[in-house]
Amino acid sequence: MIPRYARKEAADIWAPQTRFQIMFEIEAHAADAMADLGVIPKEAAKVIWEKGRDALWDAERIDEIEREVKHDVIAFLTHVTEIVGPEARFLHQGMTSSDVNDTTLAVQLVRATDLLLEDVDLVLAALQRRAFEHKLTPTVGRSHGIHAEPTTFGVKLAGHYAEFQRAKERLAMAKFEIATCAISGAVGTFANVAPQVEAYVAGKLGLAVEPVSTQVIPRDRHAAYFAALAVVASSIERLAVEIRHLQRTEVLEAEEPFDPGQKGSSAMPHKRNPILTENLTGLARLVRSAVVPALENVALWHERDISHSSVERGIAPDTTIHLDFALRRLASVVERLVVYPENMLKNLDRLGGLVHSQRVLLALTQKGVAREVAYAAVQRNSMKVWRGEGNFLDLLKADPDVTLTEAELAELFDLGYHFKNVDVIFGRVFGEQALAAARAAE
Amino acid sequence: MIPRYARKEAADIWAPQTRFQIMFEIEAHAADAMADLGVIPKEAAKVIWEKGRDALWDAERIDEIEREVKHDVIAFLTHVTEIVGPEARFLHQGMTSSDVNDTTLAVQLVRATDLLLEDVDLVLAALQRRAFEHKLTPTVGRSHGIHAEPTTFGVKLAGHYAEFQRAKERLAMAKFEIATCAISGAVGTFANVAPQVEAYVAGKLGLAVEPVSTQVIPRDRHAAYFAALAVVASSIERLAVEIRHLQRTEVLEAEEPFDPGQKGSSAMPHKRNPILTENLTGLARLVRSAVVPALENVALWHERDISHSSVERGIAPDTTIHLDFALRRLASVVERLVVYPENMLKNLDRLGGLVHSQRVLLALTQKGVAREVAYAAVQRNSMKVWRGEGNFLDLLKADPDVTLTEAELAELFDLGYHFKNVDVIFGRVFGEQALAAARAAE
Amino acid sequence: MIPRYARKEAADIWAPQTRFQIMFEIEAHAADAMADLGVIPKEAAKVIWEKGRDALWDAERIDEIEREVKHDVIAFLTHVTEIVGPEARFLHQGMTSSDVNDTTLAVQLVRATDLLLEDVDLVLAALQRRAFEHKLTPTVGRSHGIHAEPTTFGVKLAGHYAEFQRAKERLAMAKFEIATCAISGAVGTFANVAPQVEAYVAGKLGLAVEPVSTQVIPRDRHAAYFAALAVVASSIERLAVEIRHLQRTEVLEAEEPFDPGQKGSSAMPHKRNPILTENLTGLARLVRSAVVPALENVALWHERDISHSSVERGIAPDTTIHLDFALRRLASVVERLVVYPENMLKNLDRLGGLVHSQRVLLALTQKGVAREVAYAAVQRNSMKVWRGEGNFLDLLKADPDVTLTEAELAELFDLGYHFKNVDVIFGRVFGEQALAAARAAE
Amino acid sequence: MIPRYARKEAADIWAPQTRFQIMFEIEAHAADAMADLGVIPKEAAKVIWEKGRDALWDAERIDEIEREVKHDVIAFLTHVTEIVGPEARFLHQGMTSSDVNDTTLAVQLVRATDLLLEDVDLVLAALQRRAFEHKLTPTVGRSHGIHAEPTTFGVKLAGHYAEFQRAKERLAMAKFEIATCAISGAVGTFANVAPQVEAYVAGKLGLAVEPVSTQVIPRDRHAAYFAALAVVASSIERLAVEIRHLQRTEVLEAEEPFDPGQKGSSAMPHKRNPILTENLTGLARLVRSAVVPALENVALWHERDISHSSVERGIAPDTTIHLDFALRRLASVVERLVVYPENMLKNLDRLGGLVHSQRVLLALTQKGVAREVAYAAVQRNSMKVWRGEGNFLDLLKADPDVTLTEAELAELFDLGYHFKNVDVIFGRVFGEQALAAARAAE
Repeated sequence: MIPRYARKEAADIWAPQTRFQIMFEIEAHAADAMADLGVIPKEAAKVIWEKGRDALWDAERIDEIEREVKHDVIAFLTHVTEIVGPEARFLHQGMTSSDVNDTTLAVQLVRATDLLLEDVDLVLAALQRRAFEHKLTPTVGRSHGIHAEPTTFGVKLAGHYAEFQRAKERLAMAKFEIATCAISGAVGTFANVAPQVEAYVAGKLGLAVEPVSTQVIPRDRHAAYFAALAVVASSIERLAVEIRHLQRTEVLEAEEPFDPGQKGSSAMPHKRNPILTENLTGLARLVRSAVVPALENVALWHERDISHSSVERGIAPDTTIHLDFALRRLASVVERLVVYPENMLKNLDRLGGLVHSQRVLLALTQKGVAREVAYAAVQRNSMKVWRGEGNFLDLLKADPDVTLTEAELAELFDLGYHFKNVDVIFGRVFGEQALAAARAAE
Repeated sequence: MIPRYARKEAADIWAPQTRFQIMFEIEAHAADAMADLGVIPKEAAKVIWEKGRDALWDAERIDEIEREVKHDVIAFLTHVTEIVGPEARFLHQGMTSSDVNDTTLAVQLVRATDLLLEDVDLVLAALQRRAFEHKLTPTVGRSHGIHAEPTTFGVKLAGHYAEFQRAKERLAMAKFEIATCAISGAVGTFANVAPQVEAYVAGKLGLAVEPVSTQVIPRDRHAAYFAALAVVASSIERLAVEIRHLQRTEVLEAEEPFDPGQKGSSAMPHKRNPILTENLTGLARLVRSAVVPALENVALWHERDISHSSVERGIAPDTTIHLDFALRRLASVVERLVVYPENMLKNLDRLGGLVHSQRVLLALTQKGVAREVAYAAVQRNSMKVWRGEGNFLDLLKADPDVTLTEAELAELFDLGYHFKNVDVIFGRVFGEQALAAARAAE
Repeated sequence: MIPRYARKEAADIWAPQTRFQIMFEIEAHAADAMADLGVIPKEAAKVIWEKGRDALWDAERIDEIEREVKHDVIAFLTHVTEIVGPEARFLHQGMTSSDVNDTTLAVQLVRATDLLLEDVDLVLAALQRRAFEHKLTPTVGRSHGIHAEPTTFGVKLAGHYAEFQRAKERLAMAKFEIATCAISGAVGTFANVAPQVEAYVAGKLGLAVEPVSTQVIPRDRHAAYFAALAVVASSIERLAVEIRHLQRTEVLEAEEPFDPGQKGSSAMPHKRNPILTENLTGLARLVRSAVVPALENVALWHERDISHSSVERGIAPDTTIHLDFALRRLASVVERLVVYPENMLKNLDRLGGLVHSQRVLLALTQKGVAREVAYAAVQRNSMKVWRGEGNFLDLLKADPDVTLTEAELAELFDLGYHFKNVDVIFGRVFGEQALAAARAAE
Repeated sequence: MIPRYARKEAADIWAPQTRFQIMFEIEAHAADAMADLGVIPKEAAKVIWEKGRDALWDAERIDEIEREVKHDVIAFLTHVTEIVGPEARFLHQGMTSSDVNDTTLAVQLVRATDLLLEDVDLVLAALQRRAFEHKLTPTVGRSHGIHAEPTTFGVKLAGHYAEFQRAKERLAMAKFEIATCAISGAVGTFANVAPQVEAYVAGKLGLAVEPVSTQVIPRDRHAAYFAALAVVASSIERLAVEIRHLQRTEVLEAEEPFDPGQKGSSAMPHKRNPILTENLTGLARLVRSAVVPALENVALWHERDISHSSVERGIAPDTTIHLDFALRRLASVVERLVVYPENMLKNLDRLGGLVHSQRVLLALTQKGVAREVAYAAVQRNSMKVWRGEGNFLDLLKADPDVTLTEAELAELFDLGYHFKNVDVIFGRVFGEQALAAARAAE
């Protein structure tokens, strides 16, 4: 985990203290359930909660014990005994280390995903606000980096909004995937711990019961989880790359917010670099890099091996913390993005009307001109404009193959024509209600 | 695509003929919608269907045209004109190539996923049958490759069944992700094609409408799709690795089906190698290899670039065809897996009762022995068994720290103890109904 | 393998006929060596060569046999017997299938890499020619997509040349990695085949002897091989992305070659899209996708399992064929790239002289102005230019903090100043000799 | 970076203090060179070294400044001014941030790789010692996890030794790839800093000069570097998986060292789990996960963007630190591996002589029996042994198709036959000298 790309809220989920607190709660809830079943004394369960509920677990002490016993959960339980006293011997009965570790990981991932869901909401809110703000701000649509036809900046943002809506659904699914509890004993047979204990603890923690845990919660769940995060990271990258493109010197249709104290370059003080979105591009690569090891973690041997553990010690905190950071950064960039509608218009006009070429082509074919002839006429005049030999409209007027009146041609060059269905798109993305509310607020 | 790992049904989806047929249908449905809107003559739409419905598209001819015009959709439309005649000029009005290409890809992926869903059902059926067959077949559970505690072979298979249930849900979600239609024109603004056309075609093809297509259907959908397939591939790998382990010479608890005519090795004729599951392990790697390029495809520039196209020409057919093949092969292996319950029992007994160590530990602590003392006693005697210095039960009887009666100890060594909750697990996985049906059939 | 991204020369290496011919030659060379050692009759070896040397191996017949015996090498040997006659029984003595398969793969990869090395030479030649052509063509250097300082287009290309020089060395190393021969028998002990046979065959095929083959050639070699190809693919991507950027409508400093018959877009006939370099970007992703499965292939079980086989049936042909295609396409794009020096100059001037800001900063500090003060002065005036409030040179002249004479300022705005070390760079990259030759030719 | 998988020596390379010290030295060496060229006063360069050489750079103070100026190198230089005084204004003249950052990274990666090279030497030493110790320890060779033919444990280890020799060469190449220095200014043209400065600093740091740096050192170098590390990680995984297999309960031919105080399982005290090699398997996945983002970092935009930076802040320390830890752990496991030759023999005998089947097959064909007939005879009797219907030798004696005398058959069952070329293999791997020395020491 790279500290500069970590928010405290996200990092805290993975702090040792948090982890030990969750581990304690799992053990203590399990003790309650066992006490109910008469497996251990009710009084013991009570004492455990009383002494442990607000305990400050000493991570260094646990590390010290682990160095001796070379086993993390035994080290933890030994430390619990130091804090809770002899009643601690009733803890963990019939359970196995993974029961605690895997369920703890589930709780941590759920909490991390809750943060991510909040983050996506911030991104969505920013995108929605800016999309409505620029619903009819004309800009050129580009395919292959080449001017194509007019669109609006709001439509661009609406597309990203729709993508982050999907990101939200993917995160919700991902959370669902990993929100399970396993307390099933050494090989998952409930030989020494009753299924009721698992059900009780799951209920207390807001988790589902894992149908079949083979000592561990099966890792296809985690693979699906990290894969979902990777797709979200790619969506961040797409928007970041869009902004980087818009900020290019030659384009300059939008810029990242630039604070007064900020220095663009140690050498070139005039520079305003899209460093936030470049950073998001890099963070997206980092988040995605967890997919492959997560997929490789699935095929554990037999009832489990422990090869996945070191991988998850890395990717679970790193990926969730960096994605949280990236989403927050993205929300802030979108919220405060400096947009230059006048540059958008200037760029749109750059090609001397060529963006209207398709309309001309269509109008010609609708007038009965063969598609090949129409295409050739449009391309011939386009190429002249391209070579700087005149304005598209004038050239078309002068071309005998272009059997359209001046009035017809003028109408074909109207920008508004392209925006007639923007409301349809906005209605699909934001809902008719939001659209009506926005109209009312105008 | 590797022909030896391809079923005809899956490969056909990606054949040029299929592709051109889908492309034609999209164009023809769009023509119908345009005719309804009065944009093109109704008669034209009718003729198009009449002449094109059962046409045999000539892939080589289209390739030939493409070599000249260097544009795949224009090449296709030119060929359609050759078949359909002059009415073809009314096709594709206001549409852009990606409208056809992306919607075609959606149809192909949907069909491919339908096959995959059928395949998973075969895997599930085989797993369920074999799981019930071996519901109470004792076998040792292994963590870290080391004997742990008894479980049943049925429980093992039930775990894989649950995982493939999740695989099925993931495939269903994946299908949902990519089942959208885009007919929105050059930059997705519906400037020259009405949204109704898209809605009509989508309905005809059983697809949803893409909320915002920016010439292309956004590639986060495809990334999510290939990621889902990758997770399924990993689940195949997990079961394949399990079977490979079980077939090891020293373990030999199960074997892949071995046909009479088959030769195990050119050099060592006695060998029966788990080549099918080794092959599945490799195919899983191949299927997974699509995830990274699919994720890299998401951040297309502005309204689109075409870098994703060559990637998808590879991964879309390859991944779905190989996964289809792998699932079928897996279903067949599971269905015909040769299981050796007697070897399972023999292996289970190999450690002289050590698999019962935890029960002894628990019994001692429940008798009030401090956990540390109990642990030391159990470990001490375990180590003796390990070194071949005696049988676990006898050693325990002779140890003064082990304050359990002979009867108590005997009960702790009962195998049935471990299987008391197998029905709970089966109920969770297969449902109480299936469980009852299986009981009734016994 | 995607046919449209395959050259015949590269695809032929992987054709069944080629493969069977190499397999035959390995077996026949081995027979020669065995005959020399007196293990088999010399006459047999002679007959084998006579009848097999120019044989046309029937791939379909071999497939047919394989379907029966389910073993590829046995199927091949059976077919050899059909062609060669009874002497074929002396073939393959003491050898194992992998001896033939892995050595065949080595030969194929060596041949494929030889093609790739030729391809890189074409890319290098094109880059060198164009670099010298544009050695002093001024263009703006961009960091973060933002104008930085002047450079030349030749320097840009020289940087890519240097990168492809490294690519060539990496390919040479990669070839060295996989150019080994293994004929060591069932588990690599030479129990039934003498080491001399391996040495002889290796010599005949131009391969090194594999020091320890454990039935198979160890797969770390292949992982290193595909990793090297992946890095080369990324270098292709970097140059492709550069060209795509240069062709953007707003930049238009260079364009891919555009043939007269080519159609840019079915809808927008004016468009010239950088589809070749976009395609290269996609192909780079495809080639890279082999790295992960190749790395996963390394940890085969014990002396070998066969999970790597299906992976390599895919990635070995696909990766080498597509990389060959990509390098050729790249060489052609570079060779015929349309360069617009006038647009480069226009873009360079776009910022009203801001590209010279650093020189002003340096001059001020060299005159004794504190760095912070100098920085503030330069940034202040830069921002005015940025906001369109004047020309950089005029603003600097008017600023009292800028303690430079008009003459000093004028000199700071000289473009040539930036190119004084271009020859140093060219000398490093192309060698002093090439530099001198180019100068002489001027 | 996961602290529990980090050695101090490796982690220290990436500590802020180390980084700032390297940055200072680069700037101060550059100042020396500039002073020599007369660009800055010699006295200034002297003062800079005097005050800065042993300075303790205050990472927190630098962070504080960076939060304000939002630029890491400017923050560092501001802090240097606080320490060094006004002479610091002569630092960094004509240089750009990346000159410092990239060259610093090169120094760090070189140091990290030097550690890795030492680590590999430890692995090699351990493998060599154990290989010679077990040069003739018989063990069964396994393909597909199935018993194949006899080999020796020493040959197994020799194979891994050869692989780690290659790992060493790959690391040496990787170091060579990234050991370059760039001090070339804003876009790499040496406009404001003379090439001599770069040459001087490179010499002082033991680096080569980067032929063309475009503000940054090109990232194909780093991609090649991390790819090399990934291949090494896979070689670790292969050996780790081998040991995990050998330690399986049913195999138990070797075990990881097990300390007296260590607890194998919280629930099952008898267990000795191969947790070290399982951990190595996981760490290999982590190290490998850097390959994809490193490859994605190559195609920076134009002269550079900064998307690679966040990626490298993660993968550069993480990958080198974890690989260092993994190699050390591996060396220790190999050095102290508990080997059970008697179990190896027991396993070898498990198949009742079937491992000799190939020799019988060969002997038959050498006696003139047709390969198909011989194969059928051997397979027929093998299958009987497999089904427990007798001992292979006895069955062969009784089979009329097996035209071999009893004496001939007995000789075919001699284990020593398989080891006659072990010295050839050892000679190839360790050199004839080491082999002779080992023989002399016996």
